[in-house]
Amino acid sequence: MSTNLFKEHEPKLQDALKAIQERGFFSAYPEVPSGKIYGDTAKVDGQTAFEGYLGNLFALAQSGSEGTVGDETSPYGIPMGTQYPKSIIELLVAGMSESCIAWRNASIETRVGIAMEILDRLNKRSFEMALAVMHTTGQGFMMAFQAGGPHAQDRGLEAVAYAYKAMRDCPTETTWKKQVGRDDFVTLDKTFKIVPRGIGLVIGCSTFPTWNTYPGLFSSLVTGNAVVVKPHPGAILPLAITVQICQDVLAEQGFSADVVTLVADTSGQPVTAELVENDDINIIDYTGGTSFGDWVEANAGNAVVYTEKSGVNSVIIDSVAQMRAVSGNLAFSLCLYSGQMCTTPQNIFIPKDGIETDEGHLSFDEVAGAIVKGVDWVLSDQGRANEVLGAIQNEVTAERVDNTTGMVLREGSPIEHAMFKGARTRSVKIIQLEANDKEIFEQEMFGPIVYIVATESTEKSIELASSIAMEYGAISCGLYSTNDTVIDKAFDAMTLAGVPVSCNLTGNIWVNQSAAFSDFHVSGANPSGNATLSDLSFVTGRFNVVQCRTFVPEPKKVDA
Amino acid sequence: MSTNLFKEHEPKLQDALKAIQERGFFSAYPEVPSGKIYGDTAKVDGQTAFEGYLGNLFALAQSGSEGTVGDETSPYGIPMGTQYPKSIIELLVAGMSESCIAWRNASIETRVGIAMEILDRLNKRSFEMALAVMHTTGQGFMMAFQAGGPHAQDRGLEAVAYAYKAMRDCPTETTWKKQVGRDDFVTLDKTFKIVPRGIGLVIGCSTFPTWNTYPGLFSSLVTGNAVVVKPHPGAILPLAITVQICQDVLAEQGFSADVVTLVADTSGQPVTAELVENDDINIIDYTGGTSFGDWVEANAGNAVVYTEKSGVNSVIIDSVAQMRAVSGNLAFSLCLYSGQMCTTPQNIFIPKDGIETDEGHLSFDEVAGAIVKGVDWVLSDQGRANEVLGAIQNEVTAERVDNTTGMVLREGSPIEHAMFKGARTRSVKIIQLEANDKEIFEQEMFGPIVYIVATESTEKSIELASSIAMEYGAISCGLYSTNDTVIDKAFDAMTLAGVPVSCNLTGNIWVNQSAAFSDFHVSGANPSGNATLSDLSFVTGRFNVVQCRTFVPEPKKVDA
Repeated sequence: MSTNLFKEHEPKLQDALKAIQERGFFSAYPEVPSGKIYGDTAKVDGQTAFEGYLGNLFALAQSGSEGTVGDETSPYGIPMGTQYPKSIIELLVAGMSESCIAWRNASIETRVGIAMEILDRLNKRSFEMALAVMHTTGQGFMMAFQAGGPHAQDRGLEAVAYAYKAMRDCPTETTWKKQVGRDDFVTLDKTFKIVPRGIGLVIGCSTFPTWNTYPGLFSSLVTGNAVVVKPHPGAILPLAITVQICQDVLAEQGFSADVVTLVADTSGQPVTAELVENDDINIIDYTGGTSFGDWVEANAGNAVVYTEKSGVNSVIIDSVAQMRAVSGNLAFSLCLYSGQMCTTPQNIFIPKDGIETDEGHLSFDEVAGAIVKGVDWVLSDQGRANEVLGAIQNEVTAERVDNTTGMVLREGSPIEHAMFKGARTRSVKIIQLEANDKEIFEQEMFGPIVYIVATESTEKSIELASSIAMEYGAISCGLYSTNDTVIDKAFDAMTLAGVPVSCNLTGNIWVNQSAAFSDFHVSGANPSGNATLSDLSFVTGRFNVVQCRTFVPEPKKVDA
Repeated sequence: MSTNLFKEHEPKLQDALKAIQERGFFSAYPEVPSGKIYGDTAKVDGQTAFEGYLGNLFALAQSGSEGTVGDETSPYGIPMGTQYPKSIIELLVAGMSESCIAWRNASIETRVGIAMEILDRLNKRSFEMALAVMHTTGQGFMMAFQAGGPHAQDRGLEAVAYAYKAMRDCPTETTWKKQVGRDDFVTLDKTFKIVPRGIGLVIGCSTFPTWNTYPGLFSSLVTGNAVVVKPHPGAILPLAITVQICQDVLAEQGFSADVVTLVADTSGQPVTAELVENDDINIIDYTGGTSFGDWVEANAGNAVVYTEKSGVNSVIIDSVAQMRAVSGNLAFSLCLYSGQMCTTPQNIFIPKDGIETDEGHLSFDEVAGAIVKGVDWVLSDQGRANEVLGAIQNEVTAERVDNTTGMVLREGSPIEHAMFKGARTRSVKIIQLEANDKEIFEQEMFGPIVYIVATESTEKSIELASSIAMEYGAISCGLYSTNDTVIDKAFDAMTLAGVPVSCNLTGNIWVNQSAAFSDFHVSGANPSGNATLSDLSFVTGRFNVVQCRTFVPEPKKVDA
């Protein structure tokens, strides 16, 4: 239980603490999948490690397992066949409760050092992680590397920094001295101790198994809680690798592997509800769909619950400086990972009478046409299309694309994958609607389904975007306007609806992106979730401070 | 909406910010009810103001009222007869939702300045408040002045300081600049805005209507929420005065009085549940009994809930340096406000074979006898007894004292009050139990009822105190030991059970006391409540931060 790891990683922690205070650009882990950074053999090593998991048993050091479980299938069509230890939850939780004791008694620095060592090792294995993420989520390789690797690690470090800051907000000891008479004082020595809540549960999703899970995992862990990681049954491998690294580092530092455990299941025999309702689970982090998220919030008993659910995202187009730059930027946002990001726009609101642009006035049809054309261009090259779209994680999403009808501006047909013939793919389907079709477009249509909606005016567009966000939640909002009054109005309305706005994005930055240390992901201020990644509120509920105060007798007075 | 008030009060805010960081002794409002501090006429003015409320209508500037309500009775037996506006909740909430808009758009400094001005005016009216608290709660005058006045104001200021710090944790704007190529950058200007949750509800209790209410009231208020104050039907006046001052200051600064409102009711026609279940209420602060508190936690819908409920407090006596100093200190703790503090000890655990003391070994009976004798001494003088005991707030508490039977070491009979012949009083009843009577002493017996319990050993005493705290909650724990090993063991066990320990208190400091800026009141780590007064966790859930980011085009490159 030394603090050597803390000392080793402290410079990075200090950088992270500075970054969360200033919220400018910062990244601790390089996002470029280059051999120059990660080592010449990193890519091959990653491929070998990944292939070693296929068809094999994934070994974990935790207690309370009997038999194996797992039925992941790659959206790219390759056979997976990885099996994981099957947990007997009662035994697992008992083991964790026991292992909690040493962990909560370790110093803050010990725990933070271990968490940062885990992040460091995760970073070194980013190629292996990229393949694990790619073949469970369907992301293209580049996104799987970045979002599943360094960006997820950044989100983890960000949470560690907030947790460290929140724990260090209170001194460990102080002296309280009160004057109670001319020469009389009462003195108390006080100590303050961090008391973790106990066991945290982190429920992962199928599309971003690491990025959305690391903040809850690492902030519960460094605040002294044991953590059960419960991956989505379709995306276990990335979190199994994560838990294995956690257990390795914990064991090396003299702690039980049961401090961080994995509970795998299948969609046929899910166990998440049993964990949520377990009285020994005191913290729950959930990422996933809204309906199960609502159930988790309502059935968590006394556990503190942090949710990142889903929403209906909007783009409001009022007027644009450069139409081609805008349609190109938007098109990429719509195509990226086949619209399977919780930040992908669904509804694009355009005034029915058209907008002002650098090319002069453009009609509604012309603007809608420019977006369709932009998507066509992104997907016109098969290699680019495959890399940008990736594959469809869940068959249900593919069926939703196929079954969505209306005034189709662009079909969402499958696109053949050059490398993986069995990949489940769909292109971006674009449908035109009117403002009074609200009951259609206010529903979340997860996947590559886009509604372009003709509205009476930009004012009406803002009203629709904000009212949908307040009622159903929203995680992102794109705004294009050259008019400062409109921008202020949209900012005000969407801010009140709890939706971060991205204004006039063009070039290499997209509304879907959320940067660690700078962008708060999900505001917590609308039905898309009750928490944000990450802020003080995300970490302060994971522990309490309990004080002890001891009377210090006054020195005897000596008469002169 | 100027920030003049902020500038005026900023030095005090800075002192408070320093105090919550260091957690040594600090107080912003003088606790001595002296004319030299509060002005020569302060006492008379307070008396006049208080008498002016009796039998009259208490005017408030809020909207949505029809008729009047109120049936407070003084535990000292004087007639009250004050009537308050009766709210039509639907109308009240509609008015508050409207008034929220300007309030949430005001700057952080504007809101903090107004809150501090309110606290300042509350302080100036501490004599009036003391009488209002005394005649609703039954506290003695000195306690009513201190706990109801300056100490409550300190708790309010502490919450303001935490809220200010939490809001200022995030910058209001930043520039994010990411290198995306050798000479290419993406730049975003970002703004971050505090978005309050909406309307907060603060549910007061009958024994400490201001001290327990100000933290929730002021932290919701300064984070931009409107606040409904819902006093206990038996202790409306102190909070009516508070709300009136809030409304005065708000109106002077150009805000609607509906930003802070009072909803009064009677025990016969309670309205708290209706408010808790109202969908427009987004934050709830509750102080009171555990059973209704549990109901509030379970029925608050999407509101964030902070509770301070009740518990079963213990004193563990292992060994003492000076028996008389200990029994005297404990006796005062038991007598103070007739045991009606949520921090009053209920169970005193003493090894059945006695303890080591400065007077040599004392048997269990001798230690129990010393405590009884100590209580007898405190109550031997009628004036002192009246002032220390005060009166019994609720008839149910008096009946509980009368109906509690067993091996009575000391009777809890009424004590005549020298000034108020109609006062409802009870003395401290002390009953002896054995460790295997756990099903009796693990129940909360609110009021002046004390169990002295003979245990097998100190080890058993610690086990009983901590297990009861974990199952039923506890807010304080007294420990007396001259043995460092025992002290460490008790600290560890009680800390894990979420109970602050006060060790070896003698003289002018008591286990019941909880000092603002230094002591966390209720840890949040056991069933006695889910929140503490005050820490970051107490304030961070009252608002969200929502960002807007705007693309900044790169300057055109010029060929050399």
